[in-house]
Amino acid sequence: MPLHETPTIPQGEPVPRWLELADALKPTLHEVEQEPLRLVRPVPDVDHPLRFRMEPAGDVASLAAADLRAGDAFILDFGGHRAGYLSFVLGASGREPDAPARLRLTFGEVPTDVAESFEPYTGWLSRAWLPDEVVNIDDLPQAVRLPRRYAFRYVKVEVIATSKEYGVRFERIRAHAVTSAGPVAGNVPGDLPDWARRVDEVSLATLRDCLQTTFEDGPRRDRRLWIGDLRLQALVNYGTFDANDVVKRCLYLFAGLPRQDGLVNACVYEKPKPTYANIVTLDYAALYAVTLAEYVEATGDTETGRELLPVSVKQLEILGKLVNAEGMFVDPKDAWLFIDWAESLDRTTALQGVLILAYRRTLALARRLQRPGLAAGYAERIDAMVATARRECYDRETGLYVSGPDRQVSVASQAWMILAGVPETQEVGARAIRKCLAHEGAVRPVTPYLYHYLVEAMFTCGMRDEAVELIRQYWGGMVDAGADTFWEVYDPGKPLSSPYGDIHVNSYCHAWSCTPSYFFRKHRPFG
Amino acid sequence: MPLHETPTIPQGEPVPRWLELADALKPTLHEVEQEPLRLVRPVPDVDHPLRFRMEPAGDVASLAAADLRAGDAFILDFGGHRAGYLSFVLGASGREPDAPARLRLTFGEVPTDVAESFEPYTGWLSRAWLPDEVVNIDDLPQAVRLPRRYAFRYVKVEVIATSKEYGVRFERIRAHAVTSAGPVAGNVPGDLPDWARRVDEVSLATLRDCLQTTFEDGPRRDRRLWIGDLRLQALVNYGTFDANDVVKRCLYLFAGLPRQDGLVNACVYEKPKPTYANIVTLDYAALYAVTLAEYVEATGDTETGRELLPVSVKQLEILGKLVNAEGMFVDPKDAWLFIDWAESLDRTTALQGVLILAYRRTLALARRLQRPGLAAGYAERIDAMVATARRECYDRETGLYVSGPDRQVSVASQAWMILAGVPETQEVGARAIRKCLAHEGAVRPVTPYLYHYLVEAMFTCGMRDEAVELIRQYWGGMVDAGADTFWEVYDPGKPLSSPYGDIHVNSYCHAWSCTPSYFFRKHRPFG
Repeated sequence: MPLHETPTIPQGEPVPRWLELADALKPTLHEVEQEPLRLVRPVPDVDHPLRFRMEPAGDVASLAAADLRAGDAFILDFGGHRAGYLSFVLGASGREPDAPARLRLTFGEVPTDVAESFEPYTGWLSRAWLPDEVVNIDDLPQAVRLPRRYAFRYVKVEVIATSKEYGVRFERIRAHAVTSAGPVAGNVPGDLPDWARRVDEVSLATLRDCLQTTFEDGPRRDRRLWIGDLRLQALVNYGTFDANDVVKRCLYLFAGLPRQDGLVNACVYEKPKPTYANIVTLDYAALYAVTLAEYVEATGDTETGRELLPVSVKQLEILGKLVNAEGMFVDPKDAWLFIDWAESLDRTTALQGVLILAYRRTLALARRLQRPGLAAGYAERIDAMVATARRECYDRETGLYVSGPDRQVSVASQAWMILAGVPETQEVGARAIRKCLAHEGAVRPVTPYLYHYLVEAMFTCGMRDEAVELIRQYWGGMVDAGADTFWEVYDPGKPLSSPYGDIHVNSYCHAWSCTPSYFFRKHRPFG
Repeated sequence: MPLHETPTIPQGEPVPRWLELADALKPTLHEVEQEPLRLVRPVPDVDHPLRFRMEPAGDVASLAAADLRAGDAFILDFGGHRAGYLSFVLGASGREPDAPARLRLTFGEVPTDVAESFEPYTGWLSRAWLPDEVVNIDDLPQAVRLPRRYAFRYVKVEVIATSKEYGVRFERIRAHAVTSAGPVAGNVPGDLPDWARRVDEVSLATLRDCLQTTFEDGPRRDRRLWIGDLRLQALVNYGTFDANDVVKRCLYLFAGLPRQDGLVNACVYEKPKPTYANIVTLDYAALYAVTLAEYVEATGDTETGRELLPVSVKQLEILGKLVNAEGMFVDPKDAWLFIDWAESLDRTTALQGVLILAYRRTLALARRLQRPGLAAGYAERIDAMVATARRECYDRETGLYVSGPDRQVSVASQAWMILAGVPETQEVGARAIRKCLAHEGAVRPVTPYLYHYLVEAMFTCGMRDEAVELIRQYWGGMVDAGADTFWEVYDPGKPLSSPYGDIHVNSYCHAWSCTPSYFFRKHRPFG
């Protein structure tokens, strides 16, 4: 069901201690001043996935001697993506400036943002997400720093008005990139081909720009802390930026803002103060437990593990009620299951997989923390759910995992069954993936988020070469299309598609797309 | 000639001591927080001079419980004019706000500002002067204070975008009025009729809102320090706000930023730092000398008088070169003469009058300061110029003062001849004014600035009742049209006229219109 139609379930009391802990862990943002590299001009190009290529259009230094009047415009290229601020000194040419200047500034992550008008806007997300501003600047010359943060590589500046007496010129144009990410700790092991080195760079740039005072899902739009994004960001983070206290902070934010029944919200708002986003996603609640277990595993921080383990247990207690006597997840139909944006996707089998994984990881965590009592009955529950999945969710004739009454075949079902450890052998899993990808009617992933789980499932089944090839095609495809950071949405066959009805509201730096850096380090495909 | 075509003459060196003195005299701004009184709705009204009347449209308190979505709008009425800032707390209704809000805010001095669209803008002044802003506000609820200062009674708020999930509501809406004016020192002597009491209130409100860190000409637009406006503001100031140090500050600003030849500029910019506006207006240069003399007279500050007298003398030395051997001013045609915005006006005779007045006042000041040597030859110059004016600028047959080769009849010529003391008797002057006003072809005033000099000339000629009646008709006419402060431009026959091609760029609180308060105190028409 669409997000805005999900029922509102009462929120619980915030847990002050946990919110205070989260607050104390808020990281410092580093600000780096950067100069634009050049002026550019978008050129329509039917061969380009995003319709335009950028060509050089002059030196930024020329703007200091310019005489720009109403109707004049230019596009700055900062040569890469950042989340941050913009500043400049607006001067005047001609006579003394006798009026304010009015400018429109448009921030572009990709060429389409600055090459095309945003109007008419056809999306169903708020128009206020589109990154354009109209500003009036008094008393030239004037140092200007826009107060809002943007995600951008390009900045289009359009002069709406000066006066007859003067034109504007621009000096000391600077981006102020902000992130809480420090230096990268570890390189990718082995000898990387060029494409993989670039994919790793772009992955890390994506995580860097999403790594602010929480793990944002994207610095352009939404900017929320979602459990699904957090889990993937955390996986990439271990061994790269090692912003482990930010992971811990995020775990406490979710735990500190539970729903009345104890389920964590799928996302929380950090600003203006941490608060409920009032959206529960059943698979994300289960992934909270997975994320906590992985955090303790990666950091050895058993103290946090012990404090938050009951939250994981609570998730599984509530989600467990949606598992029937035969050990099969039953969609309650009144709650949101995410898994992927693919609309026709039957999510039952995928949820079964997510739940099994969450039980497994939480059981292991409870044992490690010497709290096995909290996970009492988990082993039996896992066995039952695996057995039922093998019986109910697997088509022996086709060798494919299926989902729902219509026995729908989807990448999501194959991936999550494998990640849950349902296939008896690696070969059973690998065959299911290969047959699914060859199956014309299979529901395919729409989001990089589900592509991640497909690749992870391939590595799990020993399909190393195919996993690497998929990374090369999918994430490398975005690089070939000019990505400086990985996108929220990428369909290689339809690079201009948007789940929101307008590509100008898509986010082109999105947390859930940054996982190649994790694969390259975790599974060491290059040595 | 249009302002932007006036030749640029090299500026001189700034005078650091005088600019430092000016800086040290910068007054403190007082900020007063004010609540909006009501919501209003403009109703088209063909009988209203500004096309609309305002009707009540609800309580401001209702906005705190509102659920305003894209397309919704309201208009606040703060119940009077102010220069200042706007702040509010933007909250959300519905679900938690999941996107920024985008608003358009339009600040109105008069109903037309908020009742009509600014587009298409047909004026030739910068579009950036129109007081509308588009703002995007992140992370609701959020306290917002717009960074720019506006001149307003009304604020129109239009919601451009929220999201499907939420609407906006407004709490703690406040205006923050700023002025350096303190309490008013003296009441109008005598027993005032209601209309005059209101005209006095509106005059003082006009001066109050223009009285910032300098005497601005108008807080909505231009905002510059012009000599012509300064002189009239200073006259009203003495005995009301007594912001005499601001007058002094302004005199030093002009003196500290002379043109290379020593002429003062017609206006200076205060911000971002005091600088030349690079416009010389010959009548304004002469009025600098008049303003200095009046300042010393009003305040007794002979020290400033002694320091700045050479600046007045310099103006008259340069302007004196434009007076021919017969003692008649000759238009050099390469400099701007203001007098009034009336396009067809021949300004020669008026300039003759302005110059005579400046010589007279400067001579008196030099004598008072015991520096008669600086004004050597002034008495003879005055006598010659008066004699020539009586001979060349007066039509004995019609009893009218005339100007230029076509012997043009204008209010400006009558007024300035009288203020210069050219008529032999009060009767000669009074007859000239009466005949001029009855003369169909006479060039009439366009600006309140010239109306001021007409009224002053009437008082000078003993036409007290006619002067009061003109104030009642002209300034009282603005009050009847709903003025909370007096306008930059007001033509009773064409209240929607604009010298700039679009009434939306007119200023409705303009310094040069505030002089009834001076007349009522100086000439005591009510007792």
